This record gives sequence, structure tokens and C-alpha cells, in this order.
Amino acid sequence: MRRSRDVPLLVERARAGDPRAVARLITLVESGDDLLPQVAAALAPYAGQAQVVGLTGSPGVGKSTTTNELVRALRSRGHRVGVLAIDPSSPFTGGAILGDRVRMQDHATDPGVYIRSMSSRGHLGGLSAATPQAVRVLEGAGCDVVLVETVGVGQAEVEVASLADTTLVLLAPGMGDAIQAVKAGILEIADVFVVNKADRDGADATVRDIQGNIALSERGPGEWRPQVVRTVAARGEGIDDLAAALDKHRGWLVEHDELRRRREARAAAEVEAIALGALRARIGSLRDGTELPALAARVAGGSLDPYAAAAELLAQLGA
Amino acid sequence: MRRSRDVPLLVERARAGDPRAVARLITLVESGDDLLPQVAAALAPYAGQAQVVGLTGSPGVGKSTTTNELVRALRSRGHRVGVLAIDPSSPFTGGAILGDRVRMQDHATDPGVYIRSMSSRGHLGGLSAATPQAVRVLEGAGCDVVLVETVGVGQAEVEVASLADTTLVLLAPGMGDAIQAVKAGILEIADVFVVNKADRDGADATVRDIQGNIALSERGPGEWRPQVVRTVAARGEGIDDLAAALDKHRGWLVEHDELRRRREARAAAEVEAIALGALRARIGSLRDGTELPALAARVAGGSLDPYAAAAELLAQLGA
Repeated sequence: MRRSRDVPLLVERARAGDPRAVARLITLVESGDDLLPQVAAALAPYAGQAQVVGLTGSPGVGKSTTTNELVRALRSRGHRVGVLAIDPSSPFTGGAILGDRVRMQDHATDPGVYIRSMSSRGHLGGLSAATPQAVRVLEGAGCDVVLVETVGVGQAEVEVASLADTTLVLLAPGMGDAIQAVKAGILEIADVFVVNKADRDGADATVRDIQGNIALSERGPGEWRPQVVRTVAARGEGIDDLAAALDKHRGWLVEHDELRRRREARAAAEVEAIALGALRARIGSLRDGTELPALAARVAGGSLDPYAAAAELLAQLGA
Repeated sequence: MRRSRDVPLLVERARAGDPRAVARLITLVESGDDLLPQVAAALAPYAGQAQVVGLTGSPGVGKSTTTNELVRALRSRGHRVGVLAIDPSSPFTGGAILGDRVRMQDHATDPGVYIRSMSSRGHLGGLSAATPQAVRVLEGAGCDVVLVETVGVGQAEVEVASLADTTLVLLAPGMGDAIQAVKAGILEIADVFVVNKADRDGADATVRDIQGNIALSERGPGEWRPQVVRTVAARGEGIDDLAAALDKHRGWLVEHDELRRRREARAAAEVEAIALGALRARIGSLRDGTELPALAARVAGGSLDPYAAAAELLAQLGA
């Protein structure tokens, strides 16, 4: 499967629901293969077919259990569902996440569900640069909803929000630090707060905290007011409310022309990132030539300043 | 001081030892001012005049106290010394670092010492992108040694090493986690390990741990073997040994032509980063135009794929 003429065939098989073709396409986009532009071209027509839902939260709040139950609820409504679980590259959490993946095997034999773990491979913030393309693969495969699950560590929350139509932020009672530790930006990125493990002590206080923060944040009359949903995902409780909140947010996005706006902003960021990556690769290719080392030697020797050297380098690129 | 014809004058005053001119030049390079290329051109001849020493370690190991004592030792040898303290942008550590700065005021009235805190302003890894230029300002001002102090959080250690001729990694006994938590790369970046607070219980064990790790790491016959120095910086103990270790490393760098190699590699990385930043700015300028939004709308609508859109964007740039 290295020849470019096989790409249309692979996309055709993914369209027909062949899970191995879906897996191969995601592997292709994840590996940054030379065929990536061709894969992207073949998938372009299916952009925007799915509701992309980001799901983030600290370790231990029950992300995988919630995802698992949400998949079940969406399946019972007849939706095809894709799940992209972004594994942080940190070796310290890898084990736990592999454990979580096992639980997700509830859906392993369901042909209407695609589940894929992706590494974040050094990409800062925990979201793989390949994620937008992987979402497109799942849209091409006919998914109505794509869930992108990531551990909420710093930048990742913001990144998952920039990728998603709807962002869920999971919290649990007794992790009061969750509220305090979250960066100031979390209120702006969460479309729906999920207070999981809501049967535990402190659930009311957690819900009150969030609602207090929502009330305090300034919001125009046409703006979305984040919903707060209580769940006990381990017992399947509150999941229908969560699915309803997703529907409600989706309706609001469409009604306010916000879906189009978000997706265009997302596409612009993606195009920029690809363009920048291409330029970085071209500059990188000069590293092995004689030009950059020669310029660097002049800078280190004091006969050229780095800005003038950069200008010469760009001239080499025709840029 | 906004007119370009003032830059040569400012550099001349910095050369003559005017601390306000030094401060203004660092402010200029830190602000990313339009005059930056001109400042860089004026400073280019002074590149490589100073030994650049990176100093990193976890919070609480005594970085500022050690820096303070090291400055005292270098001054007593007649060196002019510059200190760049990179403040991590995190609000959680800001307070402590401001406190540390106060201690550094031991040298506030010494005309042979320049001390400057720089923000890391969102630059990932904690080292400001302006740091290499700020080092050049201090070299221009006649510093023989420039100390770059940064909190060792993840990427910052590696960045400070890429900037420095000699990298000091500070540890303290009773912070055994320091050893365990450090990323695998720390042995490769440290030229000198400083076990500070060496009068405390566990100092011997910490020294043994480090020496054990050094012994285990593979090293060719011509390679530098990291030194381990014990200090009690708060009492000024071991600082002469530390200064001697710096001299020894400097001698090794020169003898093995490694100083030239490191500085050329550093210059190459800096030139690349400036070139990439310039391209990023050019792409960013397209964001406000009509072209990128138009391409993004086509990508979001499915009539164009993001790779083809990126190629069109680069064609707009003439790249």
C-alpha cells in the first residue's frame, strides 16, 4: 500500500465501512507519509460530515468510562461513532491509558464504532498534528459523531477545543483542585461541563462552583451559556442528559451560524500549520547542505548578524 | 529612542559601560522591536566574546544563591559578569523568583555586573526567544562571563544547554526526586553537576547517584566527563571549586575545537529560528487579508483539501 494509485481504492473501501481500510488511512496520516496530500485530497469532499466532540479532563475523572457510555448512547440512536484517544507521550500515564483502552473494548465488535489511539508524538500540548486529518478519515468512513478524547494537561484543553465543534470538560467531586488548578481559559473553552461521579460527596459543591463561575463570566445575549450535566458514568446515569446537551449545543451552533465560523477558523489554522510545516521542512533541508553551516560560521565568527543570515537563507529558498 | 540612527550611538554607550544603554538594548531585543535587525548588525562583531554559562535546576535547589556567589567569585578574578534570569511565565513561581532577585541586589551597585530578568513570554520551554540577542548585548558591553539562569522545568534544561558553552545543573540532597524526575536527557546536557546544600544529610548519596549515572553513560575517549562539585552556596563554600570546574570545561572546549562547533551549531539554530519566525509572520499577515479566509472556507466546505490550500497559500507568498 505504498503506491499512490492505491489511495482512491483505500478511501473507497473506507467509505464502504472496511475497518482495516480506516485503520490504514489513519496510520498513513499519522505517519506523515508522502501520500498524505493525496489522502487529504481524496477525503476533502467528506469534510464536515460529523459532529466533532472534544472530551478533556484531568486523570481520574472518568474520561474513558464516560466516552464508553456516550458511545453506547449514540449507537442506540443509530449514529456511527468514531473515537480518537490521544495518548500523551508521557511514559508515566501510558500504562493507565492502555488500561482504559481495554474497557473501551465493549465496542470492539460493533461495526458502527471505530476506536483509535493516537500518540501525541512530541507535539506540544498533547494533540497530534495528524488529528484533524484522522477526523476527516472517520468522517469519510461515515461517522456521524467523532469523539476526540485527551487528558487535560495545560495546552491540550485549548487544542482540543480548537479542533472540536463542541467541547466537554469533565470534572469529579473531591478533586476541588480541578477547579483551582485549571487555567483561566477553561470557562471559555467548555461548552458542556460534565460533573462525573456525581453520587459522591461534594458533587453539589462542584456543580455550584462551576455554575458560580459561569454566572460571573461575561457573556453577550447571543452567546452560548455552558451547560452543566451530572453523570455517574460507571452506572450509565446521566448519559442521556449528556447526549441531549450535545444535541442542544449542536442546534445552537447551526442556528447562530457558529458551526460554519468555527470550522472555517479551524481550517484556516490547519492550512497555516501545514504551510509553516512545509517551510520548516525546506529550511531543515538546507541544514544538510553547505549554505546554513557557512552562514552559521560567519555569525559565530562575528562577521554577519543572525538577521542578515536569516534573510540570506530565505533568499536561497526563493522566499 | 525610536529612530534607527540612534542604534549605533546606543551600542557605543553600551560598549563604554553605560548600564542604562545596556538595559535599553535588552529591552529593544526583548520587545522584538523593528530595530532588532539593526541592533543585531551593530552587535555582530562582539559575538563570542564571553563564556556563556547556563545554570538550571528545580525550584528550591538554590539557583539564585549559587549565581550570586558565583558572580562574587568571578568578580574577584576581575571578570565583568552578566546575568540573565529567565522568569518562567507561570504565575505560580513568579513570587519566589522575585524574592530571589532581591537577594541578587548584593551586586546592584557593582558597575562590573549587569543583572537582568527576562520574561519567557509564552515561549515554550521557558527560554525567551530574545535570549541569544540579549547575550550578545552583554558581550557587546564587555562581559567576560554571561550566566543564564533558568528553572529546570522540562524543555528549559535542554534549551539552556543549547544556548550555553557550559551548562551547570544544580541539585540538592533530600530532593531525590530531582534525580528520578529528570528526563533522560539531563546527563547529556550537564557539563558540571553542582550538589548544593552539601552540608545536609544525603549529600553523599546524591553525589554517588550522579557519579554512578555518569559512570554508566557511554562516553568516547575524547569526550568531556561531567564534573561533580559540592557547594554550600549560602555560606560561599565550594564556589571556588565551581569556578575552577568552569575554567576546566572552558579549556576542554577550546582544546577540542568544541567551542567553535557548539557556537556554530547554536548560530545555525538561531538563524533557522529567525527565518522561520519571519515566514510565520508573513503567513500571519495573510490571516487578515482575504486569501487565507477564502481558502479556509473552501476547505471547510469540502471543495479543497488543506494540503492543496497550503500550497496555494505558499504560492501567494512567492515561496
